[in-house]
Amino acid sequence: MSVYAAPLRDMRFVIEDVVGLRRVSALPGLETTDAALVEQILTEAGKLAGDVLAPLNKVGDRQGSRLENGVVRTPRGSPTPTAQFVDGGWNGAPFEEEWGGMGLPWLVATALQEMWQGSNLAFGLCPLLTQAAIDALREVGTDEQKRTYLPKLVTGEWAGTMNLTEPQAGTDLGAIRTRAEKTADGGYRLRGQKIYITYGDHDFTDNIIHLVLARSPDGIAGTKGLSLYIVPKFLVNPDGTLGARNDAKPLSLEHKLGIHASPTCVMAYGEDEGAVAYLVGEENRGIEYMFIMMNNARLAVGLQGLAVAERAYQQALDYARSRVQSRAVQGSSGPVTIIHHPDVRRMLMTMKAQIEAMRGLIYDVAAAIDVANRHPRRPSAPAPRAGSTC
Amino acid sequence: MSVYAAPLRDMRFVIEDVVGLRRVSALPGLETTDAALVEQILTEAGKLAGDVLAPLNKVGDRQGSRLENGVVRTPRGSPTPTAQFVDGGWNGAPFEEEWGGMGLPWLVATALQEMWQGSNLAFGLCPLLTQAAIDALREVGTDEQKRTYLPKLVTGEWAGTMNLTEPQAGTDLGAIRTRAEKTADGGYRLRGQKIYITYGDHDFTDNIIHLVLARSPDGIAGTKGLSLYIVPKFLVNPDGTLGARNDAKPLSLEHKLGIHASPTCVMAYGEDEGAVAYLVGEENRGIEYMFIMMNNARLAVGLQGLAVAERAYQQALDYARSRVQSRAVQGSSGPVTIIHHPDVRRMLMTMKAQIEAMRGLIYDVAAAIDVANRHPRRPSAPAPRAGSTC
Repeated sequence: MSVYAAPLRDMRFVIEDVVGLRRVSALPGLETTDAALVEQILTEAGKLAGDVLAPLNKVGDRQGSRLENGVVRTPRGSPTPTAQFVDGGWNGAPFEEEWGGMGLPWLVATALQEMWQGSNLAFGLCPLLTQAAIDALREVGTDEQKRTYLPKLVTGEWAGTMNLTEPQAGTDLGAIRTRAEKTADGGYRLRGQKIYITYGDHDFTDNIIHLVLARSPDGIAGTKGLSLYIVPKFLVNPDGTLGARNDAKPLSLEHKLGIHASPTCVMAYGEDEGAVAYLVGEENRGIEYMFIMMNNARLAVGLQGLAVAERAYQQALDYARSRVQSRAVQGSSGPVTIIHHPDVRRMLMTMKAQIEAMRGLIYDVAAAIDVANRHPRRPSAPAPRAGSTC
Repeated sequence: MSVYAAPLRDMRFVIEDVVGLRRVSALPGLETTDAALVEQILTEAGKLAGDVLAPLNKVGDRQGSRLENGVVRTPRGSPTPTAQFVDGGWNGAPFEEEWGGMGLPWLVATALQEMWQGSNLAFGLCPLLTQAAIDALREVGTDEQKRTYLPKLVTGEWAGTMNLTEPQAGTDLGAIRTRAEKTADGGYRLRGQKIYITYGDHDFTDNIIHLVLARSPDGIAGTKGLSLYIVPKFLVNPDGTLGARNDAKPLSLEHKLGIHASPTCVMAYGEDEGAVAYLVGEENRGIEYMFIMMNNARLAVGLQGLAVAERAYQQALDYARSRVQSRAVQGSSGPVTIIHHPDVRRMLMTMKAQIEAMRGLIYDVAAAIDVANRHPRRPSAPAPRAGSTC
């Protein structure tokens, strides 16, 4: 009933004929991304989405994630899909091979994202946020930060989170109270509470890398006093092994309709000794850096609309082909499947047309990101992005 | 937080000044329905809705109704509101005093309905269907049927249900398979399954009077072979006491978002010896009679839209008055309650304007029903109503 088949033919049509794969594979570093490779990748990803992720969607939502003894337990009694996702290297699709990625264009990675979100949105949120965290760190992290975090984030062995708002702040990020204090050794400790943290805690991965917006030690009021910090769930030793548990804990979970498997946390940083934090980039440019992550996540959330619409269309089509009710308008000896009724066909065609338009738009945006990232005339230094409230 | 205050001032404005109470109270039998009486009735009903029904809404949905050992148990651990509803005579508001009703116009009864649905929609569905069943029986029931069922239905001591469709039929009522058989003594037995039966079973009332659409013993195919039958949960003895349990049972409950307290049943009629049934009106005119009930229920379901919108508006207004976020656009020393933000005010005003328009329309329809029911030139015999698929 609730199956999902990745719409490979429609996806390839948009990638190859609407957006134009050639335009993208002409960019430096993407020369090997031809139609045959795209077909092979989409086919393999479609198997993971259809055979592994989709069947877990309903059972995951029924069981839901639970907060037990201060840690989040994702739904049990079903295989977690993380291992296959990591083994396939899927999380690293759009990232550089030097960090362990596949080096694919965002155009193709976006089609993969559509499959993860369409087959199992509750699961898909984890790589969604992780990819957005990677995008920010690879733009503005120090070389050491990149070496420490990117390889495990790119493989998906670790996950990333986005920590923006707080109970009193809402969309007014200037009201953020989480504050960084400087320690004697020149490091930082964070204290404060963050809300709506997608996959703020879970047992899918060995470590979680929180990107946290907090007021700088001497930060002025408003958004211009905010910096961006890395707060790992487990501190990372110089040799790359995991060290002490950091002072970052989930306090409660939200109830989100249809995605109860995805833990959306209230997070407490620094309830005890303060959360060990590492500054990203320069102080007081936190909003600007966080917008790299936010913009990536925004596009992916828009893509979720397409993904859920495609899933709904597949279920509607399946139902219209199997549900028998009422005679055909042109006459029939008995009731027929409802796909024979003109108004049902009209509704299905409307859904399909709207889905194809959405897919065309979103994949075209992905191709534009590839051009922006890889065009020979791209400025080599990361351009500051416009900052405002979210 | 989740309180409900009946919008008495807005309701009275629509009743008295928009629709015009005088136009309605000029009708025969409604002479005593003046503004003072309306105010008194709405005020008392508002207390029941706000103090008793509204607080049960959330807890009822959390607990939900359960099917246990073949009977439905409504949520326990909280007082059931039925006793106060029956004692107040609220269920009989729009019905004739000869049956134990208040003899009020539908104009006023509709305002009461808005309160029941707005304060606790899961509960309100029970009187909604009961009133619709009364409406059909008082139009087309025999004198004996009226004497047997109307007094208890009007007080709300018994409840009524509407049984239309079946798994294979959907909106195509001509495909109904539930069938009546004639017994040796000239009575009827019903066999078949009905779905989506609101309050198909429950423990709110001592008896449940099912109105069931079924194929007549010699009924032709399609809707023209359908008759309307009364199937009481407990047979009623000649002296009005309850007799044997009839062969009508709930098989399962639907999960309906936000109204889990309201049991929506799959009903089995005649799994064993056949359900004892009583023909309403003439054979093969079942669809026509059922439309009396359906039309009443349709208007009430439309009213639910208004009721839920009013409830949502009250909660939005309450939140906008208490949530503090962002500075005022004209400048402020700190963040202000969000009702100060012009766009929030605009959204609240849009909600309020749409609600007032809906209330004006729906109450005007109710007044038109009063005119149709009571106008001196109304035909004395019940006019057959147009029948079609629902």
